[in-house]
Amino acid sequence: MNGAESLVQSLLAAGIDTCFANPGTSEMHFVSALDRHPGMRCVLGLFEGVVTGAADGYGRMMDKPAVTLMHCGPGLTNGMANLHNARRANTPVLNLIGDQATSIVHMDPPLAADTEALARTLSVWTRRSVDPARAAADAMEGVRASMEAPGVASLILPSDTAWTEGGQIAAYLPPAPPTGPTGLAVDRAAAMLMNGKKTVLLLSNRALREAPLKIAGRIAHKTGARLMTLSQIPRLQAGLGRVPIERIPYNVDLSIKALEGVEQIIQIGAREPVNFFAYPGKPNVPMPEGCTCHMVTRPDQDHMAALEAIADAVKATEDAPLPSAPDHGSLTGAISPESLGAAINQNLPDNAIIVDESVSYGRALLPSFTTAKPHDYLHLNGGSIGLGIPMATGAAVAAPGRRVVALQADGSALYTLQGLWTQAREGLDVTTVILSNRRYAILQGEMTAVGANLGPAAQELFNLDRPATDWQAIAKGFGIPATQASDMESFVDQLNRANATPGPQLIELMI
Amino acid sequence: MNGAESLVQSLLAAGIDTCFANPGTSEMHFVSALDRHPGMRCVLGLFEGVVTGAADGYGRMMDKPAVTLMHCGPGLTNGMANLHNARRANTPVLNLIGDQATSIVHMDPPLAADTEALARTLSVWTRRSVDPARAAADAMEGVRASMEAPGVASLILPSDTAWTEGGQIAAYLPPAPPTGPTGLAVDRAAAMLMNGKKTVLLLSNRALREAPLKIAGRIAHKTGARLMTLSQIPRLQAGLGRVPIERIPYNVDLSIKALEGVEQIIQIGAREPVNFFAYPGKPNVPMPEGCTCHMVTRPDQDHMAALEAIADAVKATEDAPLPSAPDHGSLTGAISPESLGAAINQNLPDNAIIVDESVSYGRALLPSFTTAKPHDYLHLNGGSIGLGIPMATGAAVAAPGRRVVALQADGSALYTLQGLWTQAREGLDVTTVILSNRRYAILQGEMTAVGANLGPAAQELFNLDRPATDWQAIAKGFGIPATQASDMESFVDQLNRANATPGPQLIELMI
Repeated sequence: MNGAESLVQSLLAAGIDTCFANPGTSEMHFVSALDRHPGMRCVLGLFEGVVTGAADGYGRMMDKPAVTLMHCGPGLTNGMANLHNARRANTPVLNLIGDQATSIVHMDPPLAADTEALARTLSVWTRRSVDPARAAADAMEGVRASMEAPGVASLILPSDTAWTEGGQIAAYLPPAPPTGPTGLAVDRAAAMLMNGKKTVLLLSNRALREAPLKIAGRIAHKTGARLMTLSQIPRLQAGLGRVPIERIPYNVDLSIKALEGVEQIIQIGAREPVNFFAYPGKPNVPMPEGCTCHMVTRPDQDHMAALEAIADAVKATEDAPLPSAPDHGSLTGAISPESLGAAINQNLPDNAIIVDESVSYGRALLPSFTTAKPHDYLHLNGGSIGLGIPMATGAAVAAPGRRVVALQADGSALYTLQGLWTQAREGLDVTTVILSNRRYAILQGEMTAVGANLGPAAQELFNLDRPATDWQAIAKGFGIPATQASDMESFVDQLNRANATPGPQLIELMI
Repeated sequence: MNGAESLVQSLLAAGIDTCFANPGTSEMHFVSALDRHPGMRCVLGLFEGVVTGAADGYGRMMDKPAVTLMHCGPGLTNGMANLHNARRANTPVLNLIGDQATSIVHMDPPLAADTEALARTLSVWTRRSVDPARAAADAMEGVRASMEAPGVASLILPSDTAWTEGGQIAAYLPPAPPTGPTGLAVDRAAAMLMNGKKTVLLLSNRALREAPLKIAGRIAHKTGARLMTLSQIPRLQAGLGRVPIERIPYNVDLSIKALEGVEQIIQIGAREPVNFFAYPGKPNVPMPEGCTCHMVTRPDQDHMAALEAIADAVKATEDAPLPSAPDHGSLTGAISPESLGAAINQNLPDNAIIVDESVSYGRALLPSFTTAKPHDYLHLNGGSIGLGIPMATGAAVAAPGRRVVALQADGSALYTLQGLWTQAREGLDVTTVILSNRRYAILQGEMTAVGANLGPAAQELFNLDRPATDWQAIAKGFGIPATQASDMESFVDQLNRANATPGPQLIELMI
C-alpha cells in the first residue's frame, strides 16, 4: 500500500467521501488510489476556484470537510480567492495539494512555487507530508484541525510520498467538542442585558442555526435586546417559523445608522463589526463611540451552551413572536429589488437553499427571505467575488433533493463561470438567477463613497456592456438550459419552471 | 495632488502607458487619477488571471512592463498563476495591488489578506507604499526592478496612500544595462567548443531573438555544437531567414533521448535543464550522467555580448545555412499534429505572433514554424495552464497591426476563457484555434508516465465530454465570431478567413 492508498482509505473510513478535484501530474497516484478504493465521490471542476468554492458550499451545509484536490502552488493560487471566503466563513475544508517530489523540488522545476507559504496565508493548519507511513495520519490531523477551528486545513502531498510503498491506515481523530463560554462571560452578558442600556445580541457562525436562534429570540423577547448579525453571513437558517435576525448593512452610512444609539454589543460567535473598507473622513467601525463589545463565544465555541446559559440567567423562557407571511398579491411589471425579493418570498421551493452573491442589487433582500418557506441561506462571506456559482454547486452536492436558488450578480459570476459546467455534469438541482446589469454596479457606488469622480476612464472600467455578455449562449456552452426575463411575470414563470425541472437551469434577469 | 495622481503621472512620464485592470474599491482613487491624467490605455479583464496573463504577453513583446491593477490579496491570488508564468519567463510586469487603508488594516476587515506574503512568493521586488510623497518614487523603483531582473515587481498601494494629498512626481529610473559575461566564462565556453566533445549551446530568454540567434548559428556552424533551447520558451524569433533551434522535449524519455551522448552544455540565458516532474525510477534531469554544464550568462545578463565574444574566440564568422520552405502540397483530410503544423506553416500571416498553449497536442509543432514566415513565438512558459487566451490578448495590445494566432488546448482554455471578452471589447486581431479533444490528454499521458492505472475514476477526472463544451456558443457569449472545423480543408479555409478579418475570431478545431 502506497501513501496515496493509505490516505484514500483513511479518509473514507473517517467519512470524508467527497472530493472536488482539478488534478495534475503530481496527483496521479492519488487519482489512481481512488480507483483501487472506491467510495469517494469525485466532482471535477474546470478551474480550481470552482473546486474551492464548492468545498465552501459543501462544508457550510455538512459541517465536515470535503477534500479539494489541487495541483502544486499555481493550482492552489487559482483556488485561493474562494479559500479566503471559506476562511472567513469558518468552513471546514481539507486541501490536498499535490506537489513536486522531494527528490526534485530542490532543482526548482518550472511549476515549483512556495506552496507552503501560499497555503499558510489562509490555513489554520498546513503540513507537507514527506513520509508515506505518516501521510494518512497527517490527513487525519488535517481533518480534525479543519473541524475544530473550523477552517481551512492544507495538506501538501509531494508525489513521491503518494507513490512510495509503506502507507499506513490512520484512525479518524474526532474533533474535540466546542468549549462552552466561561461563567464570567455569561454573567457579564446577563448583567449587560439587564442594565437597561440599548443592547445588540450579535450572532454569527453556527449561532445562526434554527435552534440557537430560537433561544436568542427568547433572550431578545425578554430583555428588549436586538438580534443582529454581521453584514456577511456564512449560513443562516431562516424562513417562516424561525426567529428572524437583522443584518448590519454593508454600506457604511447605513451601518452607522443601523447601530445608532447602541450602547453595548454581546457577541455570540461573531467578531466585532468592522467596515469592509476605510473611506476618507468616515469611521472604520459602525458602532457609536463608547459602545462596549463583549465576546461571549469565539466562532469555534459552543454558542448553544452560551445562549442557554444566558437565557437561564435572565429567565428568558418565552418564545419571540414570529412574523407571518405577507401577501404580495400578483407580481407584475418592472423588476426591482423589492419585486425580486417578493418573487423569491412567494416562490421558494420547500427546504430550499438560497445562495446569495447578489452583491449590490440584493443588499436589502434578506428581510424578504425571512417570511419565505424555511430554508438555508448562504452568503458571500469573505467578500471575494466569484463564490456564488461554485458555492451553489457544492451546496447541491451536499444536499441532494433540495433545490438551490442562486442569486448571482453578473460581474461576479464571470470570475468562476466554469462552475456551470460542473452543475451540468453532475445534474445538480441549481437554479441560477443572473442579475444582469452589465456593469460593476458596486464600484460605481464605491466611487462615490470614497469621494472620487466617475469620469470616462472609470466608466470604461465599470461598464460591461461592450460587448454585452450573452448569458444564454454561455449557459448553452456549458450544457445548461437558459432563459431570459425582462419583467416580473416572465421571471416568476421561469423561476417556477426552473425550480420544478431536475438539473441545473439558468435565468438571466435583466435588472 | 494625491498619491494616486503622482503615481499615474510618473508612470506616464516613464513611458508605462498600458494598464490591464480588474479594480475594486481600494483602487478607486487610482482609477479616478486615470481620469484626471489621461494617456494610460486601460484594458479591462473580467478576471485577474486575464489581467496578469495579458501583462505577460505584453511584457514579452515590449521588453517593458505593463501595469496590472488588482484588488487586495484575494484579487492578487486570482492573478498569481499567470504571474508564476511571467516569473518563469522573466517578463517585466509591474503589479499595482490596491489594499486596505493603513487606518483599518489592523482591524482585519473581511477582505484583508497577507498581500505581501503572497506577492513575495513570485516577485523580484515587493513594497507596501505607505507614504503618498513616496508612492511615485516607489513605483519607479518597481519599474526599474521589473526591467533589470527582468521579472515581476509588486507595489502594494493602501487606499489612503492613494487618496491622501502630498503626492510627488518621481523621475523614471532607467534600468542598468545588462552586464556582460566574465572573460573567464567566455574563455571557458570557447575552450569547451574547441575540445572536440559533443556540445550543446543552450539558449533561452532574450538570447532567442533574431540577432543573438544569428551569432549562435555562426558558432554552431563553426564548431559543430547543437543549438538548443529549453522545453519552455518565453519568446522565440523564428521563421524563414532566421536560425532555427531545437527544443528539449517535455516528455522525459524523449528529452533523455534528445540529449543522448551530450557531454557539455553551454548556457546562454538558460537555466540548467530539469524535468517538469519527477517520475518513479527515472532521472530528474535530461542530461546524461557526467555531462558538464557551464553558465555563461544568467537570464538577466547580456547574451548578445556573450555570443559575440564567444564567436570571436572561436573565429566563427560564417553564417549557418538556413532551411528553406517545404512544399506541403494541398492539405486535405484528417487533422493531425503534422497537418496542423503544415497548415500553420503555409498560412501564417506576415509578421504574425504565434501564442502556443497547445500543450500535449502541439508538442512537436515547433519545427513546422521554423520554415513559416518570420514571426514571434510565445509559449506557455512556467507551465501553469490558462495563459494562452490572456497572453494572446496582451500580445495583441502590444503589437497592433500584427495578427496573433493562438493555438489553444481546450482544457487549458477553460481556466481563463474570460479573456475572449477582452479581445472582443478591444477589437484585437487574434485568431484563437481551440484544439478540441474534450479531455485532459496530457493527464492521460502522465498517468501512464508515472506508472499508475487509468481506471474509471481517473477517466472521469480526465474526460471533459460530459457535457461537451460548446465553444461556438461560448465565443458568442463573449461577443466573438466562431466556426468549427473537422477536416483540414475547412480548417485552412476558416484560418485564412479569420486571419484576414479584423478583430478576434475563434475556430474550434476538432482533433
